[in-house]
Amino acid sequence: MGWLDDETGLGKCAANHVPLSPLSHLARAARVFPAREAIAYGARRWSYADYRADATRLAAGLRTLGLTPGDVVATLLPNVPAQAIAAFGIPAMGGVLNTINVRLEDDTVGYILDHGGARALICDTQFLPLAEAAIARQEGPAPALIEVPDPAAGYPATGRYTTFDDLLAAGDPQAAWTLPQDEWESLALNYTSGTTGRPKGVVYHHRGAYLMTMGTVVSWQMTLYPRFLAIVPLFHCNGWCHTWMMPLLGGCVVCCRDISAAAIYDALADEGVTHFGGAPIVLSLLVQAGEDERRPFDQTVSVMTAGAPPAPATLAAMERLGFEVMQVYGLTETYGHVTECLWDADWDAEGDEARAARKARQGVAMPMMEAVTVLDKRHRQIPMDGRHQGEVGMRGNCVMKGYYRNPAATEEAFAGGWFHSGDIAVQHPDGHIQISDRAKDIIISGGENVSSVEVEAALMAHPDVALCAVVAMPDDTWGEVPCAFVERRRGGAADEAALIAFARGRLAGFKTPKRVVFQDLPKTSTGKIQKYVLRQTAAAL
Amino acid sequence: MGWLDDETGLGKCAANHVPLSPLSHLARAARVFPAREAIAYGARRWSYADYRADATRLAAGLRTLGLTPGDVVATLLPNVPAQAIAAFGIPAMGGVLNTINVRLEDDTVGYILDHGGARALICDTQFLPLAEAAIARQEGPAPALIEVPDPAAGYPATGRYTTFDDLLAAGDPQAAWTLPQDEWESLALNYTSGTTGRPKGVVYHHRGAYLMTMGTVVSWQMTLYPRFLAIVPLFHCNGWCHTWMMPLLGGCVVCCRDISAAAIYDALADEGVTHFGGAPIVLSLLVQAGEDERRPFDQTVSVMTAGAPPAPATLAAMERLGFEVMQVYGLTETYGHVTECLWDADWDAEGDEARAARKARQGVAMPMMEAVTVLDKRHRQIPMDGRHQGEVGMRGNCVMKGYYRNPAATEEAFAGGWFHSGDIAVQHPDGHIQISDRAKDIIISGGENVSSVEVEAALMAHPDVALCAVVAMPDDTWGEVPCAFVERRRGGAADEAALIAFARGRLAGFKTPKRVVFQDLPKTSTGKIQKYVLRQTAAAL
Repeated sequence: MGWLDDETGLGKCAANHVPLSPLSHLARAARVFPAREAIAYGARRWSYADYRADATRLAAGLRTLGLTPGDVVATLLPNVPAQAIAAFGIPAMGGVLNTINVRLEDDTVGYILDHGGARALICDTQFLPLAEAAIARQEGPAPALIEVPDPAAGYPATGRYTTFDDLLAAGDPQAAWTLPQDEWESLALNYTSGTTGRPKGVVYHHRGAYLMTMGTVVSWQMTLYPRFLAIVPLFHCNGWCHTWMMPLLGGCVVCCRDISAAAIYDALADEGVTHFGGAPIVLSLLVQAGEDERRPFDQTVSVMTAGAPPAPATLAAMERLGFEVMQVYGLTETYGHVTECLWDADWDAEGDEARAARKARQGVAMPMMEAVTVLDKRHRQIPMDGRHQGEVGMRGNCVMKGYYRNPAATEEAFAGGWFHSGDIAVQHPDGHIQISDRAKDIIISGGENVSSVEVEAALMAHPDVALCAVVAMPDDTWGEVPCAFVERRRGGAADEAALIAFARGRLAGFKTPKRVVFQDLPKTSTGKIQKYVLRQTAAAL
Repeated sequence: MGWLDDETGLGKCAANHVPLSPLSHLARAARVFPAREAIAYGARRWSYADYRADATRLAAGLRTLGLTPGDVVATLLPNVPAQAIAAFGIPAMGGVLNTINVRLEDDTVGYILDHGGARALICDTQFLPLAEAAIARQEGPAPALIEVPDPAAGYPATGRYTTFDDLLAAGDPQAAWTLPQDEWESLALNYTSGTTGRPKGVVYHHRGAYLMTMGTVVSWQMTLYPRFLAIVPLFHCNGWCHTWMMPLLGGCVVCCRDISAAAIYDALADEGVTHFGGAPIVLSLLVQAGEDERRPFDQTVSVMTAGAPPAPATLAAMERLGFEVMQVYGLTETYGHVTECLWDADWDAEGDEARAARKARQGVAMPMMEAVTVLDKRHRQIPMDGRHQGEVGMRGNCVMKGYYRNPAATEEAFAGGWFHSGDIAVQHPDGHIQISDRAKDIIISGGENVSSVEVEAALMAHPDVALCAVVAMPDDTWGEVPCAFVERRRGGAADEAALIAFARGRLAGFKTPKRVVFQDLPKTSTGKIQKYVLRQTAAAL
């Protein structure tokens, strides 16, 4: 270890050691970019001076409610400015930010409030009924409820609760922030979507969120003053930590309450948006938008996509529309994205389909991660041949502290000194990983593993397919066979036999779906398709 | 502090905590950009796979010499590839890199070898006489000497020592690296230029160097694959840590053994250099280069300048030549640059001179620093009015661990929880700092403080002045008066009276130099003018 013979006097002190925290970014931005636009929402604008003042007021206001450092403060908010202010204001009083998914059922929200022990809940007026029902179901003490009305969106204040603005008005905009003394202190608590059993509470520390912002700048090749459209819900991995990154770059968060193709095209045209992130379903929205929803825009728009492997056909269509799409991959447990499909200029010369296939790979570890690779069951590197499968394992500073109040699950997740993602992947000779499936989504047909992702990609190449999901269907002969659920594109007419024939032309027989069902696909709030619902449907066919 | 009620199981482990180190950048680059060009030197090229292999061989080779983690390894090298390889290879065996200035006298080099306790010295053939004389003067044990010949530059191996290539050949390119267990471990030992008394040994840790690379990407708005020309000596703050940054970006270090205008223009034209750093004297070289030395180039070239406040006239001339110049400021004690003259687009509309004056400010704290501001003698913020003067104080993760074997000097440097730069500055209403002078360079005339930098800037605006330095000259009436030393531009003819009259037209009477002396200015190896030499000359006038 690199210790000199004599380290006398070479220790940490206030001059040479500051705990890493995204709070530093907002503090600096308010000093160096005070007048720059920091948040845009409809006609409302916040400068960096305003942003810091409101975050400070929130911190001070929460103190007036009796909250102290280490207390959990929950939010039930769409991507409105209060969510961005909370991302800084709650930690600025030493609080732990617990963003809750607004589309959860009241029972689960109540469970999260109890499990996290939230002392306060900042809730959009639209979601007050959900909050009230959740609180009614709680076993433990109820949080103080703070209402965030949005009159312009049709949600005026109910008058029943202290409003967010009241709380800010009570807070001193000059109050001192409670900065972390240790960068390992907890910053945020994010519950997994938990398709089986109760959700788990993923704990982030200040260090990880800070490093996430620094590494993302490198990978996304960000320069100063981006205009970032908040499409990814801020309750999903804290919006992949992008809100914490923006002050580092003097950028603007353009808020978006309801996601639609028209809203996104409007933001591109009217707000000059340069960057956004979104699940593949958001890309599909844009690709399939009608002429009446589209708006022309001049700037280059960089899109980070994650949440599920996007279909190569969707990626190719986005490129034709003028978007630069970078696929990234990560989980709630990794603060969001930790791999990137790092592009090699040599690939530019390849054909559309080959390039789209490259872009569909999840790629390599981002710079803030030490390793993202594919491991066998004994935590050994699998052969990088694009064929052997294993589990994606991760190691680095952007891996969670662990699961809150669940040391057994934490220990299991970190077995062997790796975070186990639960995702099955191959690794190509150049080290790029490619997800085959979630461990639970893999289809085992006649002893062969079938990647649902691969079957979906084949179907998505058909012009009539807007969206599809493939799951295992029980089969007496093969154990399981692939069953496809499809949303047809407007005007699309291909029937079951046509799609099966199309897939058969591109896939081995055992991978070809035996059934194709046309229906709207069930989705989570973050755009992920709920395959467990489809599995139930398939089992009953 | 942000600790949750129950932090059970939420501690650090191999999966979620990795000590920050620039070594991670090279390890990743060799995985994700193995074939990209990493080092260029004349006809020789290293890919990232080569770079990692050579760094690994060096680490392994040093182990064969009996070195162990914590040992100091010194270098006496110009900016040749061995220096870049050493920047990673020495830490990769847990060693502490001690780059020594090749222009120091043998007595001082001997002092540094003794004080740092170097176990090995990697020395360019050109500087062997210096190394041998220094070793002869040592009081303690001599380091093992490893010779780096450079036949193409006229320095073939002497045959008297193990060569660098021999050492690499002895090392296993697959050997494991000794990574830091604690990011506070020592990475580098850099001796200050020490114009008074013995130089002090500044100790860097892995954490600081890592964060320096991440913050520089943001401030310099770097994207992937830069081509960086190594002009700043790698023995000066480890080349401002840029060598450690390049693998993060998949960039190439273009080595440059001898700095001249022709060599720089050649690198711009032939190597497609996109970025370099240099002291203002390097900018002057480029601006004053003859037509025979210049070469056309197409790319945008971003230049980071530091080491002394550049004259506004030089900055304006660089801009006209097509360079984008960003002034930064820092010290050996801060790993190099820690402030940046952050540009506001509103200033684009200002006139040339006003813009150049803006660019001459040292600006604001870079993102990896917590605070860089101006303090009075009691460590309080001075008024930000552009008039009050104080000392630049710094706080953040890119401040040194301290001075090696000198806890008293460390304690003094960190008094009150700030690193005291010794630089005198004003702070403008927008928070930007502007250095007036080194504390020891300020001229006190009739009780008024005269900034030597301000007088120099006034003289540099004269077309006949290539370079100048202003120091205090003793005066019976005023105590001190400004005395200017000037290098005239080719063909320049202005005499003493003309320059005094010119300065008088731009400065208050007490700031106007009373004498102008025409001579070559004495400079350090890093391009800083040695004002203490000029003060002696002025005192004898």
